[in-house]
Amino acid sequence: MPFEAQDPAFAERVRASFVRQRFMATLGARLVRVEPGLCEIEFDAREELTQQHGYLHAGAAASVADSAGGYAAYTLMPADSSVLSIEFKVNLLAPGRGRRFLARGTVVRPGRRVTVCEIEVESEEGGHRTRCLFGLQSVFCLPGSPGSAERG
Amino acid sequence: MPFEAQDPAFAERVRASFVRQRFMATLGARLVRVEPGLCEIEFDAREELTQQHGYLHAGAAASVADSAGGYAAYTLMPADSSVLSIEFKVNLLAPGRGRRFLARGTVVRPGRRVTVCEIEVESEEGGHRTRCLFGLQSVFCLPGSPGSAERG
Amino acid sequence: MPFEAQDPAFAERVRASFVRQRFMATLGARLVRVEPGLCEIEFDAREELTQQHGYLHAGAAASVADSAGGYAAYTLMPADSSVLSIEFKVNLLAPGRGRRFLARGTVVRPGRRVTVCEIEVESEEGGHRTRCLFGLQSVFCLPGSPGSAERG
Amino acid sequence: MPFEAQDPAFAERVRASFVRQRFMATLGARLVRVEPGLCEIEFDAREELTQQHGYLHAGAAASVADSAGGYAAYTLMPADSSVLSIEFKVNLLAPGRGRRFLARGTVVRPGRRVTVCEIEVESEEGGHRTRCLFGLQSVFCLPGSPGSAERG
Repeated sequence: MPFEAQDPAFAERVRASFVRQRFMATLGARLVRVEPGLCEIEFDAREELTQQHGYLHAGAAASVADSAGGYAAYTLMPADSSVLSIEFKVNLLAPGRGRRFLARGTVVRPGRRVTVCEIEVESEEGGHRTRCLFGLQSVFCLPGSPGSAERG
Repeated sequence: MPFEAQDPAFAERVRASFVRQRFMATLGARLVRVEPGLCEIEFDAREELTQQHGYLHAGAAASVADSAGGYAAYTLMPADSSVLSIEFKVNLLAPGRGRRFLARGTVVRPGRRVTVCEIEVESEEGGHRTRCLFGLQSVFCLPGSPGSAERG
Repeated sequence: MPFEAQDPAFAERVRASFVRQRFMATLGARLVRVEPGLCEIEFDAREELTQQHGYLHAGAAASVADSAGGYAAYTLMPADSSVLSIEFKVNLLAPGRGRRFLARGTVVRPGRRVTVCEIEVESEEGGHRTRCLFGLQSVFCLPGSPGSAERG
Repeated sequence: MPFEAQDPAFAERVRASFVRQRFMATLGARLVRVEPGLCEIEFDAREELTQQHGYLHAGAAASVADSAGGYAAYTLMPADSSVLSIEFKVNLLAPGRGRRFLARGTVVRPGRRVTVCEIEVESEEGGHRTRCLFGLQSVFCLPGSPGSAERG
């Protein structure tokens, strides 16, 4: 990893925030990897997450990818900050088939205020991985306001 | 509405597809308006949909917006076709506060294969509406394959 | 217009910046309208701006739209600030045919740091206007640093 | 390269189309690399391409990146087809400083109709490269209509 976290407790900070994201629990998402500039979240295929053809709904994939990117950015932010994604764009590369999905956020360009991340979702089936979503996201750092969620 | 549907049964077709989107039920989303080139989907604020500050998770908003845009496009497609969103981009304009949300998809440019939609989510609170998400989406029409979900 | 400029000299500030954008001169672009939250830039069809089929290159359209959106946002910023677009997304709705083009940037959501704009380009031909580009843009305000161009 | 071109004359086809893009000549852009699924275009820093702070205008960078991505996709298309970018999204990662710029388009997901590309621009200065633009693009293949530019 080419990035260094300025807050040594970055992983705990990310985990504490993740468990407060009730929507991730609704999707059955599990935080599986947190490193400086990187975050991975896993979730299983479930009927509750499908679109009209029985595949993963693009929005469910994008939701977990958005959290993965936000937390990847959050690893590099100061201890007393909060994080807010301000925009994202995703391309749906393949139908979301498979038994399990892995969402990954990777910091592309850290910034004092705006951090840019790559976000992606891979489906796993029979030992094979297929990237089904790829996107870009801008994340805003709210300094000195860990409890606030106002946008900049 | 400046658009005309070529399939007179467009609304039934959209409704039949919507009920097959299990993820919309998971989000508590209700299809409330279907017109040529337009679709509105409503859902209530619920703890299960929140992010770490207690507001609506951006992914939940984007998910319903994605369905609203896909179905807005689908109203203008032929009877024996299926619909697939190929990409979308959203800007998060305000925290998703409020008791109820309304997602709207509006066709901006219909196409034989690719249709472009505006997508948005408004939050409603105390008679006041605030647009919290605004975006653009490209939707692909798969002709002659109502049961298939392969991407073009 | 629902917006109010905090700097009464906003239009002069925008015009002074526009003339420093040498690329706008290269494209033959003319600033034709500056209001709080709005900016319009006009340019003529010229062979120098075409793609392989003789229509306006998507990049030329996006370039003028990017400037229009950046300046729409800049109208609402403080006197001693500079402006930087941090991301944009465009959908190409129709081939860029016609004799003249009008790019328009409109503020959708002003922010202290990040302002979101709609950007579009219309082609004009025989009294008829066709929207050929539509997009969304995020613009960053650099406070207190009119001469700097560092990103936040 | 993991991709194979179906048309053995893909490179000649791309070069022939590139020289018809008059806008690339206006920007001083040179096609420097064409491989299956990949295209690189180089251009020099010139005052004619600057924004208000003397750096490369984001639109000029996006324009060359759009052509690089379109041609990367075009390498994988059939001989009798034409190419059209239908949307792109770019994040501006750093000011466009430097003496020379390299735009690169790379196919992420080829499709019979819609191909998705990564697009990027690096600035070169003193042997050092900085990525100043990163984005995603959807490119449409118009089969059997090499001379047409109608959108699908």
